[in-house]
Amino acid sequence: MSESVSLTPLSRVRLAVDCMGGDHGPSVTLPACRAFLDSHPDVELLLVGTADALVPAAHWPRCTLVTATEVVAMDDTVEVALRRKKDSSMRIAISQLKLRDGVAKADACISAGNTGALMALARYLLKTLEGIDRPAIASVIPNVRGEFTTMLDLGANVDCSAEHLLQFAIMGSALVAAVEGKPNPTVGLLNIGSEVIKGSETIKRAGDLLRAAAASGHLNYHGNVEGNDIFEGTADIVVCDGFVGNVALKTTEGLAHALSQFIREEFTRNWLTKLAALVAMPVLKRFRARVDPRSYNGAALLGLQGLVFKSHGSADAYAFGRALSRAYDAAHNRLLDQVHDRIVETLQAMPALPGDQPVRPAA
Amino acid sequence: MSESVSLTPLSRVRLAVDCMGGDHGPSVTLPACRAFLDSHPDVELLLVGTADALVPAAHWPRCTLVTATEVVAMDDTVEVALRRKKDSSMRIAISQLKLRDGVAKADACISAGNTGALMALARYLLKTLEGIDRPAIASVIPNVRGEFTTMLDLGANVDCSAEHLLQFAIMGSALVAAVEGKPNPTVGLLNIGSEVIKGSETIKRAGDLLRAAAASGHLNYHGNVEGNDIFEGTADIVVCDGFVGNVALKTTEGLAHALSQFIREEFTRNWLTKLAALVAMPVLKRFRARVDPRSYNGAALLGLQGLVFKSHGSADAYAFGRALSRAYDAAHNRLLDQVHDRIVETLQAMPALPGDQPVRPAA
Repeated sequence: MSESVSLTPLSRVRLAVDCMGGDHGPSVTLPACRAFLDSHPDVELLLVGTADALVPAAHWPRCTLVTATEVVAMDDTVEVALRRKKDSSMRIAISQLKLRDGVAKADACISAGNTGALMALARYLLKTLEGIDRPAIASVIPNVRGEFTTMLDLGANVDCSAEHLLQFAIMGSALVAAVEGKPNPTVGLLNIGSEVIKGSETIKRAGDLLRAAAASGHLNYHGNVEGNDIFEGTADIVVCDGFVGNVALKTTEGLAHALSQFIREEFTRNWLTKLAALVAMPVLKRFRARVDPRSYNGAALLGLQGLVFKSHGSADAYAFGRALSRAYDAAHNRLLDQVHDRIVETLQAMPALPGDQPVRPAA
Repeated sequence: MSESVSLTPLSRVRLAVDCMGGDHGPSVTLPACRAFLDSHPDVELLLVGTADALVPAAHWPRCTLVTATEVVAMDDTVEVALRRKKDSSMRIAISQLKLRDGVAKADACISAGNTGALMALARYLLKTLEGIDRPAIASVIPNVRGEFTTMLDLGANVDCSAEHLLQFAIMGSALVAAVEGKPNPTVGLLNIGSEVIKGSETIKRAGDLLRAAAASGHLNYHGNVEGNDIFEGTADIVVCDGFVGNVALKTTEGLAHALSQFIREEFTRNWLTKLAALVAMPVLKRFRARVDPRSYNGAALLGLQGLVFKSHGSADAYAFGRALSRAYDAAHNRLLDQVHDRIVETLQAMPALPGDQPVRPAA
């Protein structure tokens, strides 16, 4: 990848879609792709799936059909996805991002297939970017400011060093700059208190690294944030290890589900409450739309030499369309180049800090 | 403490109350204590505070006033609380739990003061129980089964070994048995997947220890749980390190706050939605009551040679009363003896497992 690449947006965006992934496969992915083609005249799709499954798309405009003979199941192990199903739609979709003679067939790839397999295949086929030790999973959560908080890592890495957390901060900044249109987003380090003395040794050292990156002018570091700050929108980006991030995400999903069940139970208790529900319906619908997880579907696998996006496995066509949209935005705004440039610039500008692990990329 | 203590409930419960703690001090704690005395004829209170503050309680029944000359502020460091304010109401309240000639002046202590100071003072004054390396903070969260999930640790320990997590599981089981009336509660290990191969090395080893304790018949181990299971009520007790627990708790508080703000915004958007709010008010009130964090106020500091309970600093009289009630239930049902007995029995019955750290208590 050239370091002096121009960051003017792409005029034509090519998305490789694993049409077989997710709980519903082509019955969801194909309608979503069709609608996306209609609303995005500058997009070209590489639809990857079994020959049978792709029949409905045979004559769609700006589409190339790529056939695969195998499908990675939602409960397939990483081992099976990597070593046994070498002609899977997921694998072939990701392969479209590989450079051959400096050119890739697609600018981004989207799958609703199983996360472990997708991450393992993407890592194996694409490798990590220069300066990145480990890819991370990033997604957005709506906050009370009416904006989104981007959070990473959400489960790719159970143990993280301070250096990994710094890399996540840089990748997250590039993502938010490219997709949310904020050139200088703030980064918060997820911790159990706002004071710098809080947290484990790893977290404290991550704070040191983030402050150093901020001092060199390459990162907009807010400082520590706590769990509630995710929803306050205190920082644009919240950085944490994959264990903590996954627990926080699933806690969020669990509480949201529990509260909507409580609301439903209260409104269906008797005929009086049902009447109240009828009156309140338009308001409750607006509320539901506002917190609808489908509308912010699409997690980014960051740090790879290629843009890979993961849709929720249970996504419907609307939700899968949102994931296509996020992948499109990232590719259109050259996220890959932005991540690469930010990593190189930030790590090169970092002062030497006490500690064993190198934070600069190998020259 | 005798190992053969009878576990018949206490007929008289003596609670030491730090009346000065919390954001509101005596203006909240004293009315809460007065109401509690009226509703609990078997309770005796040791009210600890400055002489001035305690004047209103001078002639209350079943009350002993204990004067202190200092108050630990909400922003005092642990250092100040431990070394400088040696006559603080918090310190004196905890001291009532110390055995002198085998007898303590109180059965449990409650404070709404700052958590760090309370934990440090309690640990210094009371020491940990035999078999317990570190105390943990436990609290309850309502779940969709209409019950409560008990979670620990919520922030006392940022780094935990597998052995600590086992101890938390045993202490949590004793707490739920004593306070929630479930003699054999289930324990879940907070992880990022349900399979035993998930998680860090510490988590996997904790799983091994918990399975061994279950095999010996001393723990009802459910297996791994994820963030959403806290609200599903999948297990009665969820065990995790203090970093993860604190993030999950604050994430929960943050999301609950954000969602109620979203609901408020939608219902106050215009006159039509305000009308809908009026009709839906009784239902919304029931919903709010159901998720009201005041109603389950009162975290237990477990693993100490004395029962210490922490009220939220911002508690009002109702919420502080709930914390008194939890402390009362714990003391009434001899939680301290239950924790002690369970720890000794479980650790003695544990088979030897590979690993460096001893899991049995010193003989």
